[in-house]
Amino acid sequence: MAYFDAASSAPLHPVARQALLASLDEGWADPARLYREGRKARMLLDAAREAAAEAVGCRADEVVFTSSGTRAVHMGVAGALAGRRRVGRHLIVSSVEHSSVLHSADMHESDGGTVTRVPVNRAGAVDPSGYAAALREDTALAVLQSANHEVGTVQPVAGVAEVCRAAGVPLLVDAAQSLGWGPVEGDWSLLTASAHKWGGPSGVGLLAVRKGVRFAAQGPVDERESGRAPGFENIPAIVAAVASLRAVRAEAAQEAVRLRELTARIRARVPELVADVEVVGDPERRLPGTVTFSCLYVDGEALLHELDQAGFSVSSGSSCTSSTLTPSHVLKAMGVLSEGNVRVSLPAGTAEEDVERFLAVLPGAVAGVREKLGAPAPETAVHAEELVVDSLGRRCPVPVIELAKVFDQVPVGGTVRVLSDDEAARLDIPAWCEMRGQEYVGEEPAERGTAYLVRRVS
Amino acid sequence: MAYFDAASSAPLHPVARQALLASLDEGWADPARLYREGRKARMLLDAAREAAAEAVGCRADEVVFTSSGTRAVHMGVAGALAGRRRVGRHLIVSSVEHSSVLHSADMHESDGGTVTRVPVNRAGAVDPSGYAAALREDTALAVLQSANHEVGTVQPVAGVAEVCRAAGVPLLVDAAQSLGWGPVEGDWSLLTASAHKWGGPSGVGLLAVRKGVRFAAQGPVDERESGRAPGFENIPAIVAAVASLRAVRAEAAQEAVRLRELTARIRARVPELVADVEVVGDPERRLPGTVTFSCLYVDGEALLHELDQAGFSVSSGSSCTSSTLTPSHVLKAMGVLSEGNVRVSLPAGTAEEDVERFLAVLPGAVAGVREKLGAPAPETAVHAEELVVDSLGRRCPVPVIELAKVFDQVPVGGTVRVLSDDEAARLDIPAWCEMRGQEYVGEEPAERGTAYLVRRVS
Repeated sequence: MAYFDAASSAPLHPVARQALLASLDEGWADPARLYREGRKARMLLDAAREAAAEAVGCRADEVVFTSSGTRAVHMGVAGALAGRRRVGRHLIVSSVEHSSVLHSADMHESDGGTVTRVPVNRAGAVDPSGYAAALREDTALAVLQSANHEVGTVQPVAGVAEVCRAAGVPLLVDAAQSLGWGPVEGDWSLLTASAHKWGGPSGVGLLAVRKGVRFAAQGPVDERESGRAPGFENIPAIVAAVASLRAVRAEAAQEAVRLRELTARIRARVPELVADVEVVGDPERRLPGTVTFSCLYVDGEALLHELDQAGFSVSSGSSCTSSTLTPSHVLKAMGVLSEGNVRVSLPAGTAEEDVERFLAVLPGAVAGVREKLGAPAPETAVHAEELVVDSLGRRCPVPVIELAKVFDQVPVGGTVRVLSDDEAARLDIPAWCEMRGQEYVGEEPAERGTAYLVRRVS
Repeated sequence: MAYFDAASSAPLHPVARQALLASLDEGWADPARLYREGRKARMLLDAAREAAAEAVGCRADEVVFTSSGTRAVHMGVAGALAGRRRVGRHLIVSSVEHSSVLHSADMHESDGGTVTRVPVNRAGAVDPSGYAAALREDTALAVLQSANHEVGTVQPVAGVAEVCRAAGVPLLVDAAQSLGWGPVEGDWSLLTASAHKWGGPSGVGLLAVRKGVRFAAQGPVDERESGRAPGFENIPAIVAAVASLRAVRAEAAQEAVRLRELTARIRARVPELVADVEVVGDPERRLPGTVTFSCLYVDGEALLHELDQAGFSVSSGSSCTSSTLTPSHVLKAMGVLSEGNVRVSLPAGTAEEDVERFLAVLPGAVAGVREKLGAPAPETAVHAEELVVDSLGRRCPVPVIELAKVFDQVPVGGTVRVLSDDEAARLDIPAWCEMRGQEYVGEEPAERGTAYLVRRVS
């Protein structure tokens, strides 16, 4: 069995386990109390805060512990927006942020605020100029991830921070995917992270707010954690989270090199082993352990199932939309193929043999799914000037498979009109055209669903 | 060493520790994932939810796990208020709720809602008629604790639930102090609790919302926990919380009898051992392990320090105001003495010898504090018709000590005017009068602070 989904949640680091056990006996009491057990709890909490601040690169009194990374984002965004309400209610986010950021932005909008979503290039990266263009007089806050959770692309945080600093706008960096690898570069104002992503326990997030940043915590008043994170502190888990952060940091430089080589191998070999695959995300500026690719004519969930049967745990699309059939907002924003999407994110310590075994198993798994779905094989048939493919009521990847099946039947210059009512088709049909070098003409409303027009150019 | 502050946080139950360890290895993955590790995590979470529902007395799909009891209250109150916003924006709470409830009420008020705070009797209990009188056409929600966290008084939940049900208003019961002892009686609509109060780990709260109760979760959208508790689920802690709830429930009936006898002993013996003590809270309808008393002429913090030195960990006043000098809102609402307040809350398994040792140590500790503060001893002196005591700038319990020192100097019928700028004096001078059988005339604004008038009647 090989677990390749560290970007969702990393297995508990042995140091975290050890620290958790040790502090269960010392850290259960209320740290606000003056008696012996309370003082012990307080000392553990203070020491953890100091160590966390050192790892983040800020002052201890700038760090509060929350109950999750999602909570850190919700509270960080809400608190920073409220703190600068007098400046205005404009929020800037990238279009590929984690759902906790995008849902905070949606809420801000439905509450009367305005939001600009900065686009990304085909590799999933924003450009500082995109943030510069989005900044306004009434911008209260900008948010950017340090690295993307789905495709591993590292964002130009320092450049964006510079642009924001020049405009006097605070930048919140969501460092959930990268804090275990090192501190975030650049002059950020707020930072969030999540312990279970670096091998810490569940139940611990981190919110750093630099001194001088206007911040007004939202929700009912609570005295704990400087009034910024309500509820009884989970000290054993906090101690374990920080101990494991230090441990993974100590191994980070060496492990990054090793994992980067393994993911580079996957990036290079998958397109050789499997036809019609698109590897996505920046090939250079990327997280060491993450690699993502999409397979044409493949249903992502079916492929995950095949791989799970073969002993590999990977994920598909956005971690936060796995319970729905909406295509990943990240892949959509990048304009790349979303069907048959697989994210491999290697936990620290992944064995080379497991990666090789994965590469050995993948081609058969993809072929199996394609066969079940009746994916196209070359075929000669009657040619027509325009063919209509009716895939109404059929889900991704069927519309693209049907398109590919008939495509040879139209002459060069002819068109195929695909009728579909599946949202994913809007993304996947243009992506197929780009991969195949065919012309995507556009879409138009149909009696039912939408008609997507593709012209054969070769 | 004896830890007598279970009402703040109970030491981790051995079963919780064991369950936590076991599920660290099985429950760390994302339960929304379809692969092996995710399915295991999901199974653990589902089983924990079933068991929690059984202990609460509701359906599994009515229970969500939150990151703390405070969060459960914040989210339960906000969600229920929003769900019934069309009915109105009136909220009813008792005046002795936990700060998480009262701060939610304050926020509701500052957001334009209205709040009625139902008073309590001198034992700290509400009366169902108080809720009946508070109910209005536009009442969206009523909140009541199952038992008070500071004085242990059990509230008439079933009666209040009946009154609310008749009016079609949902009742949220904060069961933080009692869920370990048994399910909450009566026809409640929402229920909240906190695992570390019953010996579970930190980081787990519980929110139950009965089917049919209108509820609109507030804050950014998140799919986890039926959309009612954002953030990655802390499954090992949830499993440990539920396992320990079942374990303490199995021992509850027997342990309740044993602890009730020990606290009854404290209730009876403290007034015999220490002069000028008021034992507060209902002598009959009370939590098994909690007993609270206040000592005249004593500074609560100094007494805690003395007791800590002697090896006893107890708390004073409200757990949530320990970092401030404001007198406890609970003691204030009850109209009882707040100075020199001590709450003893025995964890399950407390040894009888430790309670006896506490009773042996207490008189010396109180005497020590009184001596340091120069508490009054009988004395003859010149009598005057009215004496003025200037305790401006002096903190509780100094104003009462100064009052007591000079009181013998005025003849029967004469008055003492105490000048004080400490908020606690407003509560403690009337309480001293009641304990001493003297007449509290009232207060009036003074050039600085407030003048409190006391007439000698015996």
